Amino acid sequence: MNIQSFIPPQRTLMGPGPSDVSARVLSALARPTIGHLDPLFVGMMDEVKALLQYAFQTKNEFTIALSAPGSAGMEACFVNLVSPGDSVVVCRNGVFGQRMVENVTRLGATAIVVDCEWGRAVDPQMLEQTLAHHPEAKFVAFVHAETSTGALSDAKALCEIAHKFDCLTIVDAVTSLGGVELKVDEWGIDAIYSGSQKCLSCVPGISPISFNDKAVAVIKNRTVPVQSWFLDQSLVMAYWSGEGKRSYHHTAPVNSLYALHESLVMLKNEGLENSWERHATLHAELAKGLKGLGIEFIVPENERLPQLNSVFIPEGVDDAAVRNYLLAHYNLEIGAGLGQFAGKAWRIGLMGFTARYENVALCLAALEDALKQA
Amino acid sequence: MNIQSFIPPQRTLMGPGPSDVSARVLSALARPTIGHLDPLFVGMMDEVKALLQYAFQTKNEFTIALSAPGSAGMEACFVNLVSPGDSVVVCRNGVFGQRMVENVTRLGATAIVVDCEWGRAVDPQMLEQTLAHHPEAKFVAFVHAETSTGALSDAKALCEIAHKFDCLTIVDAVTSLGGVELKVDEWGIDAIYSGSQKCLSCVPGISPISFNDKAVAVIKNRTVPVQSWFLDQSLVMAYWSGEGKRSYHHTAPVNSLYALHESLVMLKNEGLENSWERHATLHAELAKGLKGLGIEFIVPENERLPQLNSVFIPEGVDDAAVRNYLLAHYNLEIGAGLGQFAGKAWRIGLMGFTARYENVALCLAALEDALKQA
Repeated sequence: MNIQSFIPPQRTLMGPGPSDVSARVLSALARPTIGHLDPLFVGMMDEVKALLQYAFQTKNEFTIALSAPGSAGMEACFVNLVSPGDSVVVCRNGVFGQRMVENVTRLGATAIVVDCEWGRAVDPQMLEQTLAHHPEAKFVAFVHAETSTGALSDAKALCEIAHKFDCLTIVDAVTSLGGVELKVDEWGIDAIYSGSQKCLSCVPGISPISFNDKAVAVIKNRTVPVQSWFLDQSLVMAYWSGEGKRSYHHTAPVNSLYALHESLVMLKNEGLENSWERHATLHAELAKGLKGLGIEFIVPENERLPQLNSVFIPEGVDDAAVRNYLLAHYNLEIGAGLGQFAGKAWRIGLMGFTARYENVALCLAALEDALKQA
Repeated sequence: MNIQSFIPPQRTLMGPGPSDVSARVLSALARPTIGHLDPLFVGMMDEVKALLQYAFQTKNEFTIALSAPGSAGMEACFVNLVSPGDSVVVCRNGVFGQRMVENVTRLGATAIVVDCEWGRAVDPQMLEQTLAHHPEAKFVAFVHAETSTGALSDAKALCEIAHKFDCLTIVDAVTSLGGVELKVDEWGIDAIYSGSQKCLSCVPGISPISFNDKAVAVIKNRTVPVQSWFLDQSLVMAYWSGEGKRSYHHTAPVNSLYALHESLVMLKNEGLENSWERHATLHAELAKGLKGLGIEFIVPENERLPQLNSVFIPEGVDDAAVRNYLLAHYNLEIGAGLGQFAGKAWRIGLMGFTARYENVALCLAALEDALKQA
């Protein structure tokens, strides 16, 4: 066995994530490792918390970076908040909504599914009707930015309806955080999770999470222990509580957290609303070009997620051949379709650091070439 | 809020982990991020698998790097193998054995605890007696290298006994992998997990895991679904199966896996047995010096874990004052005591890249100075 160091090529990442990681964030990632209980690292984590509160637009005390990918962040929300026997309304409009259903089922709770059309935003009216028929529901869960389809739902409206029916909300913001308007406190989101590798353009592997006081109270009042030791937030709360205090839960991914800190400093320096605007502007630029190539969007214009452009593969074009050509010839990665759209769609990401004019120009030129070759 | 980039100091990490991460591994970590489904990344993961098989000394097909810390690796083993109602014998001789008990309980199985003395290896006779009295037991779980106490157990003997009683073995090798003799196939270990930040001297955040065919069969024959979606290895098996094939489960921590690959290449180049020998030699060097300072080990000599030197805090010496002085004056981190030894012990790590003569010399000189100051 003669295995050498792995030297990756330089790619342009315009898939559904990870997005381009800047040299600045990679440098931060590679700073010298220190101990996870080192007072200086603890101080850095206090800053990460403040920066995440900014990114989420929340004052939630319980705002942390989970030491695992967004899927674990999703699971952390469900296993901490929901108890066996509870009823959870899940709005399913894509792969990640379906994943929420799995989470609910596996912990012994009941999922009441609002079955929405894939490629469309969640219909608030359908949610309202479901809640009216299910007074036993305690939670409403939905995906803000459905990465499998490119649809953006109206989180504010969905949360209002959920609260009208006294339900706590669990919101997936994996692809929305940093890219589109998201106001956790103003919209009354009770529990929210995201991922590091989408619009934050950090390296993959960390899931930012935030719970408000109502959610924390639910956790503290559990009668059944959380089924996961690793994801038990009551244990994690001890690790993250207060300034400067840290007791040992598990070893945090120190270097990845350096990178997250740096990504969040960059976001703060850019300004959250400026970031939202940049994503919208670059999306418009890409959309214009795609139209010029005769490529059509799947999602209606007012429901489109700017940072995840899902388009129909043009008639007669070989899906894999085009994507492989883009990767091999231009080092450009675009995303394949997923779930119901597997083989039918491409997903072109414009997330975080990827969202730059030069990438839009490259993508359009490369696609035009690839389609000619096809 | 005016938060700047975080620039960590350069520390010497002689605690219980993370250990020193070499410049070489930090460089690997910072190589450009590519997609987790990129064919080149998939190829790298095939190499990681082969390298982990080497490190574990196994031909187990199911050998992977879990995208979360060692604690999640522990949980992955339990939630995949053990079903509600099963009986699991847990040998508890420290904090991490107790954590195993928690894992068993939370999934609705019964933990039969072999209550061992902390600071000592697990007594094989006690295990044998327990198994003789519990024919219902299906699994035996134990910690090979108990990081909270510095005790090394005889994994080979414990596995023999477990198999005599037809139990599958679940072994924690978080601190042993790469540092002391570990032969998964030869000793018949059925399920094993480790961590990236101990003797592999990779960055924290990843847990290598391996299951043999018997363990995989148990997983495939489950009648109750795994309670965790994120840790469900039957789903992960689809991601890791065969060469070149990858379907989407979750986004892998790409950069951390670059670092793991590099760490494993370094281990392969050094040679596993040479690594074991280096850890033993450096431990002997440190032990000699500690003896000269009148500092005593907690664990009897033939049960000592070379890479985790747990010693009694000398009489009348202020625990925190000494550790803080070492950190502030020498940028040297040593570990506090944990669990039953909190406030009573120091844990001096000599793991992986940390295990070098220059660190031993520094540690002894710094300790001598710190004790004089005290």
